[in-house]
Amino acid sequence: MTAGERRGRFIVFEGGDGAGKSTLSAALAKRLRGAGRDVVLTREPGGTRVGEIVRTLLREHLAPWAEAFAFVAARAQLVEEVIRPALERGAIVLCDRFVASTYAYQGYARGLDLGALRAANAAATGGLEPNLTIYLDIDPAAGLKRKAGEDEAIRTGLEAVEFHRRVREGYLRLISASAPGTWLRLDASKPAAAVEKAAWEAINDA
Amino acid sequence: MTAGERRGRFIVFEGGDGAGKSTLSAALAKRLRGAGRDVVLTREPGGTRVGEIVRTLLREHLAPWAEAFAFVAARAQLVEEVIRPALERGAIVLCDRFVASTYAYQGYARGLDLGALRAANAAATGGLEPNLTIYLDIDPAAGLKRKAGEDEAIRTGLEAVEFHRRVREGYLRLISASAPGTWLRLDASKPAAAVEKAAWEAINDA
Repeated sequence: MTAGERRGRFIVFEGGDGAGKSTLSAALAKRLRGAGRDVVLTREPGGTRVGEIVRTLLREHLAPWAEAFAFVAARAQLVEEVIRPALERGAIVLCDRFVASTYAYQGYARGLDLGALRAANAAATGGLEPNLTIYLDIDPAAGLKRKAGEDEAIRTGLEAVEFHRRVREGYLRLISASAPGTWLRLDASKPAAAVEKAAWEAINDA
Repeated sequence: MTAGERRGRFIVFEGGDGAGKSTLSAALAKRLRGAGRDVVLTREPGGTRVGEIVRTLLREHLAPWAEAFAFVAARAQLVEEVIRPALERGAIVLCDRFVASTYAYQGYARGLDLGALRAANAAATGGLEPNLTIYLDIDPAAGLKRKAGEDEAIRTGLEAVEFHRRVREGYLRLISASAPGTWLRLDASKPAAAVEKAAWEAINDA
């Protein structure tokens, strides 16, 4: 399914932990629904029963490739069960994380082979690409501080910050290699209302 | 890790459902242990905590690629956690199913792209290949009859037989494309003692 064949629109939210993706996507979903739009708000790796089982899997001490393929398996299920049917009926799908998370976290930050990750994602998604990916850019240390106390909290202070710096560098590389108009990078340290306003305008133009 | 670098030996058992893989591998493990060998007997997708969670996943109604990547994720974990350490210390690893199952079931029988499956397996296993794969060949209808009543029983008679015929054809193609001495095809309709004897001799020559 290419952008031309689908009836709906597929908007993805990416960024490091604590960047505010779920708050922003929920706010935009509410606003779109208020405007009478058919909206599906979902997230990776949850969003399906299969995805929820994969979340339990990710709490285990996973081998790097086991982690990568577990995310890809959940993605394949989410695309077939939720995203594709919603796009086919013309809905706007807002998804918290998608293929770019695999490249940033498992590829750039953990060092797994990007070619193999791309091949797996292409198979899992059937080549489905977002109309727009909104990247919430935040200083890794600030993001981790926001997240502290939550489930996915910092394990080991400095090591975690270093890892998330590599994640951010990965995202910035993806953005610089992307086609014009496919990514929007927003400064997530700005007030939530300003971030939401910029995202809202971009979605309406997407 | 190539065959030359590893100290142990890696023997895989493949075949359709009901061919007798687990009975044979358990019998051979007992015999090897009786001969004083260090033996690790394992199976896919179980064999690790992660693999057991993947087994629960496989009970869901999975998208074809979600199923394929769930198996590959469990394999990556099994290789890193169980198989590779055992081979490095010089053990004989007997494994019920490995990469060939993915090609036969998800590739040949379900029709998923073999190139993508091969790329995923290469990443997940780090290129690890068995010293010997023992294929237990059985008529699909007979195999399914043997399995009936068990957990993974036949869902829909004829459809299941047709699916398992494609699985068998897939295995036969893999065998005909394999390097000499890497696969042993045994007639699983023969008495168990005769099958075990042939497998025992092949393992000792592997």
